[in-house]
Amino acid sequence: MICIADNIQITRKVIENALNSYSREPIMEQVRICEQHGADMIDINTGPLTRNPEDKMRFFVETVQEATSLPLMLDTSNPIALKAGLEICRNTVYINGFSLEPHKLETILPLAVTYRAKIVGYLLNPDSSVPLNALERMDRALSLFEECSRRGLDLEQLIIDPVLVPLLWADGSLQAMDVLEVIRSLPDLLGFPVKTIVGLSNLTTGAPDPEKKYLMERTYAAMLGMAGIDMVLMNITRRQTVDTLKAASILMKRRVFSWEEL
Amino acid sequence: MICIADNIQITRKVIENALNSYSREPIMEQVRICEQHGADMIDINTGPLTRNPEDKMRFFVETVQEATSLPLMLDTSNPIALKAGLEICRNTVYINGFSLEPHKLETILPLAVTYRAKIVGYLLNPDSSVPLNALERMDRALSLFEECSRRGLDLEQLIIDPVLVPLLWADGSLQAMDVLEVIRSLPDLLGFPVKTIVGLSNLTTGAPDPEKKYLMERTYAAMLGMAGIDMVLMNITRRQTVDTLKAASILMKRRVFSWEEL
Repeated sequence: MICIADNIQITRKVIENALNSYSREPIMEQVRICEQHGADMIDINTGPLTRNPEDKMRFFVETVQEATSLPLMLDTSNPIALKAGLEICRNTVYINGFSLEPHKLETILPLAVTYRAKIVGYLLNPDSSVPLNALERMDRALSLFEECSRRGLDLEQLIIDPVLVPLLWADGSLQAMDVLEVIRSLPDLLGFPVKTIVGLSNLTTGAPDPEKKYLMERTYAAMLGMAGIDMVLMNITRRQTVDTLKAASILMKRRVFSWEEL
Repeated sequence: MICIADNIQITRKVIENALNSYSREPIMEQVRICEQHGADMIDINTGPLTRNPEDKMRFFVETVQEATSLPLMLDTSNPIALKAGLEICRNTVYINGFSLEPHKLETILPLAVTYRAKIVGYLLNPDSSVPLNALERMDRALSLFEECSRRGLDLEQLIIDPVLVPLLWADGSLQAMDVLEVIRSLPDLLGFPVKTIVGLSNLTTGAPDPEKKYLMERTYAAMLGMAGIDMVLMNITRRQTVDTLKAASILMKRRVFSWEEL
């Protein structure tokens, strides 16, 4: 189980300010916090970077690489910024993410082919709306696989994100259960040990109080583990959620257990 | 999801002493603690009660009934004690438990038929050893169902316990995963919406420290919820485990979610 920190994101004021003023230290400090909390990978969520995308992405990636040698996930919908980031990555790098949206197939997917980077594909409709149920997600997964094959991606580079939506949505809890079903079924459906990832923070967006939020997050984390998830993008400072994912992962290995592993 | 307190058991000194000296108050106090912690049912684990089984069981059941009107589970391998308890139960009563052991089929199962009580059947071998894997458990479940039908039990009275063993056992974590598989598959296998129960405390017996113990317990609790468990016998004072079971149960209902439910 790979735990990826979603903490280095432009929507956080500390990160936004540091990026806008090209200040390295606040970003490095946040990255060190992620590493201290057990992150296996760092997601660099820059947003679309409409102004100076190449400069800003280069600064961002260089800064993060100064603080850590962990693998990085570049998380932007801007292919110009993405390319600039991929060019200067020394650490192992993943692209997060693309989907069946035509412009993403045209501009993001080819970068994964060129740079031989692993890439996260979201199970979204071509108009970027969320599928209604597990069956529709499965259908999107088949389409993604076809598109990737056709466009020359080695299928081992593909990681599928079935897209978790907030429980607050009218059908949020149904979707959460469908996502578990998809994670469990995908390798059989595709006839391939496809890796899966979920963005866990999304589940509890808008929760009325922290205690309930964390309770639901760690409960669902155990379920993700049972479903066979490979990677979880999450707020890495939530100790109990990280611990739960690790405990679930140990159980799921189906081999002799030792309390020392925990 | 029904949470059953396993706290009222003879192996605890406070209960043993109270039972031996026929002191009601310590038992009632412990029952009230269980109810305050959200127990839906109280398991009365008397052990075999080799001396004065009828007197002691009557005293025990009467005392618990003075403290609570919650449903009770009578947990003894002694059919004489069990019969005495069933006779004076005013609260809803369950029998816990029997298995394919011949003397239990002969002496415990008929009491469930006579008193029309729900009864927990363990998926154990006839010699009381634990099955080796999920397949063997499924086979024991089929045998239990046949025996129950043959002996006149209404199948809706039967609750299946697939028997969780400590993670410390050489194959403990494999068995824990098998138990989840059995819980998920049993209704399909038996062609009947059979209810399932698990004794959760057993899983973490011998854990080296409380933090790891509770982490593994609540992680597995979420998995039990996802597998579709109906009843969990547990240390009801573990707030996080109870909360996790409730959260899992809410998610599993597959209907519109509200944070107010938690």
